[in-house]
Amino acid sequence: MIFEFEIVSLHQQLQLQRMNYFSSDFKLGILGGGQLGKMLLAETRKFDIQTYILDPSREAPSQFGATHFSIGDLMDFNTVYEFGKKVDLLTIEIENVNLDALDKLEAEGQKVFPSPKTLRLIQNKGIQKDFYVQHNIPTSAHQRFVNLDDLKSNCLTFPFVWKCAQFGYDGNGVKVVRSIDDIGNLPNVECVAEQMVSFKNELAVIVARSASGEVKTYPVVEMEFHPEANQVEYVICPARIDTKVAQKATEIALQVSKAYNHVGLLAVEMFQTHDNEILVNEVAPRPHNSGHYSIEASYTSQFENHLRAILGLPLGNTASKVAGIMVNLVGAEGYSGNVIYENIEKIMAIDGVTPHIYGKKETRPFRKMGHVTIVNEDMKEARRIAEEVKNSIKVISKKLL
Amino acid sequence: MIFEFEIVSLHQQLQLQRMNYFSSDFKLGILGGGQLGKMLLAETRKFDIQTYILDPSREAPSQFGATHFSIGDLMDFNTVYEFGKKVDLLTIEIENVNLDALDKLEAEGQKVFPSPKTLRLIQNKGIQKDFYVQHNIPTSAHQRFVNLDDLKSNCLTFPFVWKCAQFGYDGNGVKVVRSIDDIGNLPNVECVAEQMVSFKNELAVIVARSASGEVKTYPVVEMEFHPEANQVEYVICPARIDTKVAQKATEIALQVSKAYNHVGLLAVEMFQTHDNEILVNEVAPRPHNSGHYSIEASYTSQFENHLRAILGLPLGNTASKVAGIMVNLVGAEGYSGNVIYENIEKIMAIDGVTPHIYGKKETRPFRKMGHVTIVNEDMKEARRIAEEVKNSIKVISKKLL
Repeated sequence: MIFEFEIVSLHQQLQLQRMNYFSSDFKLGILGGGQLGKMLLAETRKFDIQTYILDPSREAPSQFGATHFSIGDLMDFNTVYEFGKKVDLLTIEIENVNLDALDKLEAEGQKVFPSPKTLRLIQNKGIQKDFYVQHNIPTSAHQRFVNLDDLKSNCLTFPFVWKCAQFGYDGNGVKVVRSIDDIGNLPNVECVAEQMVSFKNELAVIVARSASGEVKTYPVVEMEFHPEANQVEYVICPARIDTKVAQKATEIALQVSKAYNHVGLLAVEMFQTHDNEILVNEVAPRPHNSGHYSIEASYTSQFENHLRAILGLPLGNTASKVAGIMVNLVGAEGYSGNVIYENIEKIMAIDGVTPHIYGKKETRPFRKMGHVTIVNEDMKEARRIAEEVKNSIKVISKKLL
Repeated sequence: MIFEFEIVSLHQQLQLQRMNYFSSDFKLGILGGGQLGKMLLAETRKFDIQTYILDPSREAPSQFGATHFSIGDLMDFNTVYEFGKKVDLLTIEIENVNLDALDKLEAEGQKVFPSPKTLRLIQNKGIQKDFYVQHNIPTSAHQRFVNLDDLKSNCLTFPFVWKCAQFGYDGNGVKVVRSIDDIGNLPNVECVAEQMVSFKNELAVIVARSASGEVKTYPVVEMEFHPEANQVEYVICPARIDTKVAQKATEIALQVSKAYNHVGLLAVEMFQTHDNEILVNEVAPRPHNSGHYSIEASYTSQFENHLRAILGLPLGNTASKVAGIMVNLVGAEGYSGNVIYENIEKIMAIDGVTPHIYGKKETRPFRKMGHVTIVNEDMKEARRIAEEVKNSIKVISKKLL
């Protein structure tokens, strides 16, 4: 699916086209140096594009593979602004960055993709939900609260989903509230209460939208979450759903992408209800856990397409060569300290199994330490192997908690 | 195809099995920091394995992506020896390294894969040819000469293929000699004269052989060379040849691999004569240009399998997901200086096309600057696109020679 929009000005488009990115002096800045940054760097190395990474931690997974790595606070105005001045184009691998600095950089002519305007609409989950309502994008009912007292003083029907408005990630900052008692345990922050949706499937569609106006979508994927940690356990591509439902999910993802007018990747997470209604849950304006399978299964990985999109290069083929399933490697409960990937040799002996180790030296319960991709011509076989992988490998340490 | 050999001692095997490579203190040393090293680093990053690179050039393609990068002469005994002492396991991405240093390291208990013994049998093309004769491996007739005068004083039938015995690469050090006049232009070095083989196809098979004794072969690939530069222009996987010929080539590659008792990858280049005879041309004990297609087309890339092999991890699936063709990107004649990849955007707009830019800032005529992989479900379509790619992209510079 290809649509044409004027996303950036013609002047900017010409500038982008004239750019020589490959083995040149062009400098790409990336805010954040986690695993998403690390996997993005694999693509910048492939194209020999100079990269500048900013991350608060000296131990960040992206410390290697970048041409320059700086340590600094992503929420600090001056740090982000000064970093942005050094590069030719700025992107992110995490949403929680100082947007005022990005606004100022953009106002001064710096290319920032995704734009701070898009990020502002996404960074706060309350604003994000309001945005869907304003744009007639199907989503569950919600109410916004400035803090916990505000929430307490309102009448709410149990159960509901509580989300902290900002800075939550990987299931942190999301709770199912079933009673008055549960409310007492919530932190006193700006938040959103969402209607609890009873759903058949959690789906996601990644939309790639280029600075030059090209749009492509990855196939619909199906997700299974860990019941406690609220982290994805399996991502299955393609989703084993009806073609019509897949089509509907893709159309809604494109609607969301158009509404945000974003540049780069937009991962749209959705619920498929028991009536086959599609409700948008939330979005991420960057490469996403639900697209990791693409490194091995797709013609062009999500990371390469993010890069192509923000640089105004033609988008790569988003179709799959083979069925792909992704298993997250999260720290096992009860272990903390120097990580050991128990039975990794065992899973590597299975055809089509590729572990990705993010490079975090210390494991903690439920910490995202890596993922494993399983590819196979046959989806059923891939699913069988995925379960074998999940049951074999264990992220532990010598030290028990 | 899987065979079991005792390649390394049981003691070494147990040591390897006990190793924790992933996000650990384990240090892999790589001699050479060219494009092969760079692509190998993509895999060490994926597994978060610490790497130490040694290369003579500050501008080496592998300067990024390694955890440590040192500058030093690969032919200097002390440099290589001291470097080897710092790491837990040593591998190479180029054959021309100081073998005396590797011998001493190995004698002192250091793991070196491929072993200096294997490298010694390969580094000198005269010794390599003798080795095939000794092991009943089919190869073209040859004669060895200590220098040019030695060659001149012998009766040779024109035409023949002259090869300098050591330090030739990418077609440098190989000449077709058609007359007495041609001999006058040859350098005065140790050399080999080989019978000129009239062949239908140039084929290659990459054998992966693990420190723990596992052996797998990649499919037979077919190569087309540039008529002047003697560099590969297309590598086509799978080779469009008869199954029986492919089987024969695979068996001979395994015979060669067994004879060398190598650990890691062994790329075996062969001629298919007009009588469907297979003659071994030469080998490379490392990832090879003829296996670059595997990054996009195979379940497990040659680089990942080299790593798995030397670490004694299970080998990955060498089969292909889709047809793959590789086009080398070499510097265009007449250009020298800061590289420009003309029409790279044009080829990136074609489905299944992935450029790899090695990161050499300066182009020179016939210099290997990168490669492009074309993958497609349909081989004919892949071949058509490969030609389109070859005719579109041009490696030039602003400065003419």
